Amino acid sequence: MQTCHGARAGELDTPHGTVPTPVFLPVGSQATVKTLTSEELRDIGFSMVLANTYHLYLRPGIDVIEKMGGLHRFMAWDGAILTDSGGYQVFSLAPLCRVSDEGVTFRSHIDGSEHFLTPELAVNYQEALGADIIMVLDECPAYDDSPEKVRKAVDRTHRWAERCLKARKPHDQSLYAIVQGAIYPELRRRSAEQLTALDFPGYAIGGLSIGESKEVMWATVEETAVLLPENKPRYLMGVGSPEDIVEGVARGIDIFDSALPTRVARNGALFTGQGRRNIRNAAFSLVEEPVDPECDCYTCRNFSAAYLSHLFRSDEILGLRLATVHNLRFISNLVNRIRNAILDGTYNAFRDDFLAGYRTTDERTRFEQKRKWLRERGT
Amino acid sequence: MQTCHGARAGELDTPHGTVPTPVFLPVGSQATVKTLTSEELRDIGFSMVLANTYHLYLRPGIDVIEKMGGLHRFMAWDGAILTDSGGYQVFSLAPLCRVSDEGVTFRSHIDGSEHFLTPELAVNYQEALGADIIMVLDECPAYDDSPEKVRKAVDRTHRWAERCLKARKPHDQSLYAIVQGAIYPELRRRSAEQLTALDFPGYAIGGLSIGESKEVMWATVEETAVLLPENKPRYLMGVGSPEDIVEGVARGIDIFDSALPTRVARNGALFTGQGRRNIRNAAFSLVEEPVDPECDCYTCRNFSAAYLSHLFRSDEILGLRLATVHNLRFISNLVNRIRNAILDGTYNAFRDDFLAGYRTTDERTRFEQKRKWLRERGT
Repeated sequence: MQTCHGARAGELDTPHGTVPTPVFLPVGSQATVKTLTSEELRDIGFSMVLANTYHLYLRPGIDVIEKMGGLHRFMAWDGAILTDSGGYQVFSLAPLCRVSDEGVTFRSHIDGSEHFLTPELAVNYQEALGADIIMVLDECPAYDDSPEKVRKAVDRTHRWAERCLKARKPHDQSLYAIVQGAIYPELRRRSAEQLTALDFPGYAIGGLSIGESKEVMWATVEETAVLLPENKPRYLMGVGSPEDIVEGVARGIDIFDSALPTRVARNGALFTGQGRRNIRNAAFSLVEEPVDPECDCYTCRNFSAAYLSHLFRSDEILGLRLATVHNLRFISNLVNRIRNAILDGTYNAFRDDFLAGYRTTDERTRFEQKRKWLRERGT
Repeated sequence: MQTCHGARAGELDTPHGTVPTPVFLPVGSQATVKTLTSEELRDIGFSMVLANTYHLYLRPGIDVIEKMGGLHRFMAWDGAILTDSGGYQVFSLAPLCRVSDEGVTFRSHIDGSEHFLTPELAVNYQEALGADIIMVLDECPAYDDSPEKVRKAVDRTHRWAERCLKARKPHDQSLYAIVQGAIYPELRRRSAEQLTALDFPGYAIGGLSIGESKEVMWATVEETAVLLPENKPRYLMGVGSPEDIVEGVARGIDIFDSALPTRVARNGALFTGQGRRNIRNAAFSLVEEPVDPECDCYTCRNFSAAYLSHLFRSDEILGLRLATVHNLRFISNLVNRIRNAILDGTYNAFRDDFLAGYRTTDERTRFEQKRKWLRERGT
């Protein structure tokens, strides 16, 4: 582990290879990162992906994937896999979710059928999938729930984390805990203290990027990250835009995941060093250059912005693929540059340079407001 | 050119390489074979594709593609390209189509705008796109139009073919004529005699596979093919299922194109040696073998039928890609086997073997009915 003003460069050892950190995990909820093959993910530069236990439990079913030889073989991916426990999806996607100490009852968002998930089952399911890193079942309150409600969720998340540890079979998967506490510093501290006492091999910060402002999110990340063990990986769940990765690394985060880069790609928003560009903008329809002339991705090496613009206007699936390849390559390159800057001891300069170039005017205004707010808050 | 009981194995020399025949052209109407990159098409085994002048004229516009350096560069395809003139699409897709000797007025199926296409413009557009083989503008009657109406379309197609020849600039593209005549043997003969007198480098049979029975289609192909010059390529437009390629080759056809293999793939119908299989069938959801264990495509080498089934049930784009790769590889392998059988002098045996294995019970019944019908008809 090498650090640079709080930014950290390390490694995750997994049964499917060593993963350099900081790392971004593309999201393959349904055992596929949308539009891409596993081979393409590897070629783009990724060595670890995320899959969702909730989605795979509902369809095709954990037993089906187990019968097919596990998730790696099912999706033909020989890199590392981290699975989410399903907690966040149950609380955010599933209708009629009812939680008790025993577990959580929810209805499928696909067919309305009723299901019951416990901490023990969440661990069993993730072990059956064969993921390299698995997550505890947690209770995710809304960011604006009352302190009393959030405190109960924090304590339940703690009890569930203990049960997850006990439910583990002696496999070689790493089980990470998830710190909750919404936007309340004292509850984040309570959660971090409870969970670090249990000695998990890695810690996630959950329950953020779900509606609170960026200012509040980063303040919470800062306050929480310093409470986590220095020698263990820190994972900021559900966060992964280019600017957020850069900001998160500065606050000591090692692992990110987000569907944002692939989702906005399918909407035609492509990352460039100067910020997001929308390929549906009429200005691109006659551009012979690639969307990002500085990019070395398959899309930018082979196709004009005009061709990509044509594919999007013509509703061609190849457009979704090429945009996804570009955005993921942008993230992969960004993470490599971040790691090199940390190792070179120049991360602060890299971060300032990147953010100065990347943000649009509106974003920069917002960024300055945030800095001001943080200064006033004394952080 | 080598022949075997009427089946022919030859070569097409184009500015973008030599293409062995028989050949099947995947359809890339909008400058993309749906879901795939040009690189993948080449890897699957194709050296020539079809694009549609009608679609590209409407979107992004012929001038845009010309400015971007031509169609090959636009879609990053260095193999050969055949473009259709737009005649068939104008008559079948565009609303409010009005034809006169001068040309055809139609409305865009995209935005309703009015356009006018002449034989001269059809040639100019295809030359601007830079296709290797271009087609004359023809008038396509419905298969059940009256003989009088079809005769007029045949004569107009002849006059337009003469105008296309005159409109050509001295480029290295090959301009093929299209024999019309619907299902009337005497009108097919009239069209073939008119057009072969003009000495085109290749001849297409148009106006088939548009609603008439297979029996009538093959009878018409047989009657028409024998009227075409032996030393020039013969192209059966819009036909390209596995069984139809096998039947068409037996009747002396060299070139096929059809969106069917890619379209049915996106509907979940996958070709196997035993016929089409629908991946949405519940039986596939637990199959660890690939969809077609005999297939060497990327999909069958890497993924179980269960995974493909899961992708289709989950509406994942990767499913559409993997099914398309499989069906096109099946066709590519089939065409290679056909060519080898012709060169070995064993095409009749190959054809019987393939059709006996490929057809489902219903199709075989229909096939036998056709044979009976053809025997009774004395052909």
